[in-house]
Amino acid sequence: MSIAVIYGGTRPNSNTEMLTEHVIQDLETERIFLKDYHIKPIIDMRHSTEGFQDRKDDYNSIIDRILPHDILIFSTPIYWYSMSGIMKNFIDRWSQTLRDENYPNFKAKMALKKAFVVGVGGDDPLIKGLPMIQQFKFIFDFMGINFAGYVIGNGNKPDDILQDKNALFTASQIHNELQLLTK
Amino acid sequence: MSIAVIYGGTRPNSNTEMLTEHVIQDLETERIFLKDYHIKPIIDMRHSTEGFQDRKDDYNSIIDRILPHDILIFSTPIYWYSMSGIMKNFIDRWSQTLRDENYPNFKAKMALKKAFVVGVGGDDPLIKGLPMIQQFKFIFDFMGINFAGYVIGNGNKPDDILQDKNALFTASQIHNELQLLTK
Amino acid sequence: MSIAVIYGGTRPNSNTEMLTEHVIQDLETERIFLKDYHIKPIIDMRHSTEGFQDRKDDYNSIIDRILPHDILIFSTPIYWYSMSGIMKNFIDRWSQTLRDENYPNFKAKMALKKAFVVGVGGDDPLIKGLPMIQQFKFIFDFMGINFAGYVIGNGNKPDDILQDKNALFTASQIHNELQLLTK
Amino acid sequence: MSIAVIYGGTRPNSNTEMLTEHVIQDLETERIFLKDYHIKPIIDMRHSTEGFQDRKDDYNSIIDRILPHDILIFSTPIYWYSMSGIMKNFIDRWSQTLRDENYPNFKAKMALKKAFVVGVGGDDPLIKGLPMIQQFKFIFDFMGINFAGYVIGNGNKPDDILQDKNALFTASQIHNELQLLTK
Repeated sequence: MSIAVIYGGTRPNSNTEMLTEHVIQDLETERIFLKDYHIKPIIDMRHSTEGFQDRKDDYNSIIDRILPHDILIFSTPIYWYSMSGIMKNFIDRWSQTLRDENYPNFKAKMALKKAFVVGVGGDDPLIKGLPMIQQFKFIFDFMGINFAGYVIGNGNKPDDILQDKNALFTASQIHNELQLLTK
Repeated sequence: MSIAVIYGGTRPNSNTEMLTEHVIQDLETERIFLKDYHIKPIIDMRHSTEGFQDRKDDYNSIIDRILPHDILIFSTPIYWYSMSGIMKNFIDRWSQTLRDENYPNFKAKMALKKAFVVGVGGDDPLIKGLPMIQQFKFIFDFMGINFAGYVIGNGNKPDDILQDKNALFTASQIHNELQLLTK
Repeated sequence: MSIAVIYGGTRPNSNTEMLTEHVIQDLETERIFLKDYHIKPIIDMRHSTEGFQDRKDDYNSIIDRILPHDILIFSTPIYWYSMSGIMKNFIDRWSQTLRDENYPNFKAKMALKKAFVVGVGGDDPLIKGLPMIQQFKFIFDFMGINFAGYVIGNGNKPDDILQDKNALFTASQIHNELQLLTK
Repeated sequence: MSIAVIYGGTRPNSNTEMLTEHVIQDLETERIFLKDYHIKPIIDMRHSTEGFQDRKDDYNSIIDRILPHDILIFSTPIYWYSMSGIMKNFIDRWSQTLRDENYPNFKAKMALKKAFVVGVGGDDPLIKGLPMIQQFKFIFDFMGINFAGYVIGNGNKPDDILQDKNALFTASQIHNELQLLTK
């Protein structure tokens, strides 16, 4: 089994990235920083005769990178109580891929994967981050993806996350699980 | 009191737009279609010495349009169980405006406003749309905005919303409330 | 199809009861006021050799009353942001019935039913009542019960509910649905 | 600072009790097992001229036990996706105490306290237990109680909780916090 990490943050060495580092540690992963790609918002063409149009951006190349992997880690700062807008635009576009004949069986392929969520927020994230977890649950359920675990960290200023021992511990437990899955 | 409507959808005459039409009807509103603007994702520069940088896009012009109004209606299709990525990118950028000296007292000004949410989804939205409502609640609470009401509609195919009598009724009740507020 | 209404409130002519009246109106229903029964809390005996013991209270008689019906309406005041303790004790005891050989196929029988929830609260119930709806969703999903709809009303003082036009309208829509189902 | 633990479970040495043991360990606590008390459901008399009536049960004696303490730990198995019915009945009765002249300033006294929640469930509790956490948040917010932390454990069969390393770790972190608070 192999792992792709999908980063929704923009700040290098952010708390979210550091917590994710505790998850992956020495494991081989494909790291995808969404901020390095141009991802246009979806234009809903489900009901027009021409259907979805090629948006001529980098989105498909990201799908190409994640599809070969068995485990997806969604790593996002909690911005305004959910995933970052970049990550949301990325997931919104799945609606297009679900109807894209260049990606046959997209849903069935995604349904074979496991997913983990790593989120860090600064405003009572263990309470105010819960709707985000519930949202991810619905997303994964829709796709048939197994939601294998999550960790929410508390952090605002740089390096804050290093004080959140519960988050670091849970991250290391996910690491152990990933280690078993990938060896 | 005056009203701005912030649209997060992309499909003209969408179910979301139609439901929003039942909310505003004959009332004078400033209608802002986020899809017509270029809104870059936030780059988190809170902790860098240079601070946030001008992103040279249309974001500020939208803020300029909404600030004069007393009532904000967030109208969004429920994509993947929350607001659209465009709308999320728009709200993410508030973190920048909160620190932008060109927008002094942004939070205090926003705190004087009332907000309504109009959302339409196709997958059991009265259950699976609830985390989105909880997320908006946290967003508005953070800013001090009064969350004055919401309506969730059920719709997938074009015009589906016209069958959702509860949503249409609730929309018309919000309309009545807006009528009183703006006259 | 026939209807049982399970009332969790204690105040006669309460807002919850009035809203429920808008749901059932002229329809024939079996009305079960939990307050009129003695329902002991569950004692978890799942893991003891003797198993669950007869609690010698009225609980089973309520199960006997609801089992023949196809549609269950859970009508509860929102106390402390969820169903009343009486109703919770009633549902907790389902864990016993699931293992009671006097009630073979309890889950399978319940899985044939549709359920509606009617809840009224006085503290921002359309926001703070949402976890209760999410809880009911999990309860019904576990049992395989179809969660066919809900209405949340706003009320504190007697008769307040009569001012909540959205709730009354939604209740009347549920009534129309029940009318079709039962004729 | 002193600690009261309010247990909502009924099975001795349950997973919930074991996880709570990791929270309190060697600390001096007042342990209140709700199952050992007779707690009648609330009868809502807010709006009747005579007001709430003495229910002649053990409820007040529990309030007497918790009021002197600064920290309350609510320890409950997750039954049907929320606290046990016993615990719910206990909390429902707070509505009566809030109006009981024998308990002047009940809310103000409770508002000085910190609360922790310990919950253990067997059906995906880190997802399906979240509405319970949200419910407790609203309860504590209403009373002005500081919601200082929670731990959700995964357990079904006896001793399962000992395999949930994340829960045990979080429990021990809460223990460390309590140790600092009470010394």
